[in-house]
Amino acid sequence: MSPDRLSTTFSALADPTRRAILARLISGEASVTELAEPFAISLPAVSKHLKVLEHAGLITRGREAQWRPCRLEAGPLKDAADWLDHYRRFWEESFDRLDDYLGELQGQEEERHGHEDEH
Amino acid sequence: MSPDRLSTTFSALADPTRRAILARLISGEASVTELAEPFAISLPAVSKHLKVLEHAGLITRGREAQWRPCRLEAGPLKDAADWLDHYRRFWEESFDRLDDYLGELQGQEEERHGHEDEH
Repeated sequence: MSPDRLSTTFSALADPTRRAILARLISGEASVTELAEPFAISLPAVSKHLKVLEHAGLITRGREAQWRPCRLEAGPLKDAADWLDHYRRFWEESFDRLDDYLGELQGQEEERHGHEDEH
Repeated sequence: MSPDRLSTTFSALADPTRRAILARLISGEASVTELAEPFAISLPAVSKHLKVLEHAGLITRGREAQWRPCRLEAGPLKDAADWLDHYRRFWEESFDRLDDYLGELQGQEEERHGHEDEH
């Protein structure tokens, strides 16, 4: 994947309305009118957001003339998640440090008991 | 987390140079000069990217006057990954469908062998 593809994905996700539209599509296909309902914005504004999502490959739209349902396409989300996964060890590090500390405490405890047995 | 926080993170990630800077920081702290080396862009341009990353909380900078090393901060990346994780089942669906198909084929195979035994 070219870097631009990933930039297009992240850029499309950098908006709360677009993320809310994707969240709505988790529960199934929806028309533009249905998608617009929860937002205090105009249909043209929703259409603009849908164009951004469509351009990023995050949704596809049905070909029915009257009702062109929007459908979630998760491929670009997977690529974004794969990119983020390279950094996983950094956010898991704090848990590892806690693990190390607990391990160390346990080691000291065992050593102390060892010494007690010697007496 | 407010939606804006996530938008700031995704917006900061929507640039190949900024993603390359974060990737460089996986291997440890680095100065602005070190970070600028691989790119055919000016130091001020790199500084501008660093400001965006710092504003998004994706890096912190040391307080040493001469050398202010940049350091990766993975917290916002974890939040972005957590958001993307809600969509995991959609990109895993294609594998599930393949699994179902293989299971179906195996079922037919077993049924066929069953019938052969009857004869």
